[in-house]
Amino acid sequence: MADQTSATDTANKFIQEADQPSSKLVRFGADEPLELDAGPALAPWQIAYETYGTLNQDKTNAVLVCHALTGDQYVASTNPLTGKPGWWSRMVGPGRPVDTDRYFVICTNVLGGCLGTTGPATTNTETKEPYGLKMPVVTIRDMVRAQARLVDRFGIDTLFAVVGGSMGGMQVLQWAASYPERVFAAIPIASGARHSSQNIAFHEVGRQAIMADPNWSGGDYIAKGIRPTKGLSVARMAAHITYMSDESLQQKFGRNLQDRDGLTFGFDADFQIESYLRHQGMTFVDRFDANSYLYVTRAMDYFDLAAEFGTLPKAFKDSKTRFCIMSFTSDWLFPTSESRAVVKALNASAANVSFVEIDSDRGHDAFLLDVPEMFSTIRGFITGAANARGIPAPGSGT
Amino acid sequence: MADQTSATDTANKFIQEADQPSSKLVRFGADEPLELDAGPALAPWQIAYETYGTLNQDKTNAVLVCHALTGDQYVASTNPLTGKPGWWSRMVGPGRPVDTDRYFVICTNVLGGCLGTTGPATTNTETKEPYGLKMPVVTIRDMVRAQARLVDRFGIDTLFAVVGGSMGGMQVLQWAASYPERVFAAIPIASGARHSSQNIAFHEVGRQAIMADPNWSGGDYIAKGIRPTKGLSVARMAAHITYMSDESLQQKFGRNLQDRDGLTFGFDADFQIESYLRHQGMTFVDRFDANSYLYVTRAMDYFDLAAEFGTLPKAFKDSKTRFCIMSFTSDWLFPTSESRAVVKALNASAANVSFVEIDSDRGHDAFLLDVPEMFSTIRGFITGAANARGIPAPGSGT
Repeated sequence: MADQTSATDTANKFIQEADQPSSKLVRFGADEPLELDAGPALAPWQIAYETYGTLNQDKTNAVLVCHALTGDQYVASTNPLTGKPGWWSRMVGPGRPVDTDRYFVICTNVLGGCLGTTGPATTNTETKEPYGLKMPVVTIRDMVRAQARLVDRFGIDTLFAVVGGSMGGMQVLQWAASYPERVFAAIPIASGARHSSQNIAFHEVGRQAIMADPNWSGGDYIAKGIRPTKGLSVARMAAHITYMSDESLQQKFGRNLQDRDGLTFGFDADFQIESYLRHQGMTFVDRFDANSYLYVTRAMDYFDLAAEFGTLPKAFKDSKTRFCIMSFTSDWLFPTSESRAVVKALNASAANVSFVEIDSDRGHDAFLLDVPEMFSTIRGFITGAANARGIPAPGSGT
Repeated sequence: MADQTSATDTANKFIQEADQPSSKLVRFGADEPLELDAGPALAPWQIAYETYGTLNQDKTNAVLVCHALTGDQYVASTNPLTGKPGWWSRMVGPGRPVDTDRYFVICTNVLGGCLGTTGPATTNTETKEPYGLKMPVVTIRDMVRAQARLVDRFGIDTLFAVVGGSMGGMQVLQWAASYPERVFAAIPIASGARHSSQNIAFHEVGRQAIMADPNWSGGDYIAKGIRPTKGLSVARMAAHITYMSDESLQQKFGRNLQDRDGLTFGFDADFQIESYLRHQGMTFVDRFDANSYLYVTRAMDYFDLAAEFGTLPKAFKDSKTRFCIMSFTSDWLFPTSESRAVVKALNASAANVSFVEIDSDRGHDAFLLDVPEMFSTIRGFITGAANARGIPAPGSGT
């Protein structure tokens, strides 16, 4: 019973954050539909976001930070569901590489997410029930369309920079391709211009794990006050392995046992890596919605800029945007080859691009961790771009 | 109802193959217990196996082939559950590298398996119910102990060769370490002397997927006439990705769609890789028992020869066995570094070892596929060893 109550509480918390988020929010009415790749436009709809720093008078200093699969708008402030500090506080803040003393930072919850932007947990105003699978499937381009509408509301013509890692990097590339004139600088990290076959395969395992959970109930679990926590937990465990390198798992956990007395000859978590993964799965379900997981993974799977534009170079034709592209040596989910394909396409388009492959043993998750070379690269690139854009340095008195 | 009936039929088939397999069988009585690492000995117990070729008078030409995680004893003959040809027919047979005109080949179902050797699906003679989780957890060493008891029954002192890939390779290394005087030649392929942290992590995901399926029923599903097919299917899907390389998935499936009309904007299998994985999951449950999957993955996780012997070189101290070790360039589940660690230990023990890293883009599964360099390497090594052992060549008239 305790479990059931707590599951219901969490479900209620989700419904609340989905409809009435703790963060800032813009609602678009029935007369302001959002165009979607799937066909029918979405209306009404809403976008939740956080901002940091101050927009200057010319509105030239806005940086859009795009979050990854299970990220959120709380890039540099406390997440209301977890109580944890912002997921990229090392990158964004006063004096940080994305310096909120100089730039005005916007971070939105993605379309399809579960923290205030319209997604499957949002109440459908027609039925008064959560959308569930009645929410149209969304794409990375749709996410970016929604962000552009928010940027319009701010009256910002051109974003100084768009920055993000993993799925955030996909949004960066989509911004640069869809709205080249609105992006001065683009920083896609640990990302690529498409989801590979292996990437899709791992996402499909996660979706099947969720949909195999009887509590999933065809996507209608929220209305029933239950949640497919077991399935979502397995999905997260599988995904989490792909975020780390073989080397970092071996260094961090190796074959270390939980219990000094040795193997238990059972199916409890004997190895530290097992209890770590179980913990990752169990805590994840308290901060993420299972249907959102289906939608956002699907958006990543569908992402393929070359298919959208015919060829990848065409996606960046005549682009004036300055690109800074980064990959990590031990990232096997978005290996350097995926970044290189983007660099090659940009070179073919004679675009302004710098590319750095950073030596790190931390795997895909490196972009979220304390990797000094990443910070110094971004600081250098973004400062140079800001100077070119004429954004005053903090304390310069201008 | 049709699904339920077919699930019951399959369950009945499993119970039948587990207790009364289609293959050869040796039963060990209550007075012939099998020692286990977990502590209490197992009795009665049974081992199912197939043989190919003829044992010579001196009993010097026996080759033990050890199967991988979901393999079976039908290395070169039809599997009675699937109707498919032997899983290593390319390797074992008349004129094949493991030439059944020259060698007597034995292949057993592993302890903990589900095709006739004692495992969780076997009827516990005390309770008249399938063991389920009452089966003691077994180790690779236990599997090898069981095989050694069968080899004893044949009156074979020394196996001419022990051969296997992946978990089969673990058994090969365990044979060489536990019974050095009983192994003339050892051929571990795409394997290692331990399961890595990442390997354990993927297995744990599979086990959690099975145990999250309500039909699993704490392991007592067979007695209830149900099966955790959804959980087992997810486990197989996750594992299957690890058997292939990123490159081979990209080549074979890429981002190819099922439907020429394009994306469906839904959660059906849009991409060929998705329907391929779903198919892998669905067909797997018809030939494998979920509890066996728990037991056999656990045995692999527990495998760590260095821990057993103190150091890896000590595992092969004074070994007279000839080793031929093979890895594949694109195998990320058992990367070449794992094989090299074994080679290094064997060198430190001044053992007789040859090592080949084979260039292949097929990932871990390469050992089961048509990889000519693997066949020619094994043919060359095994022929040389057979000549040294004095095993007459076929047609030599001796």
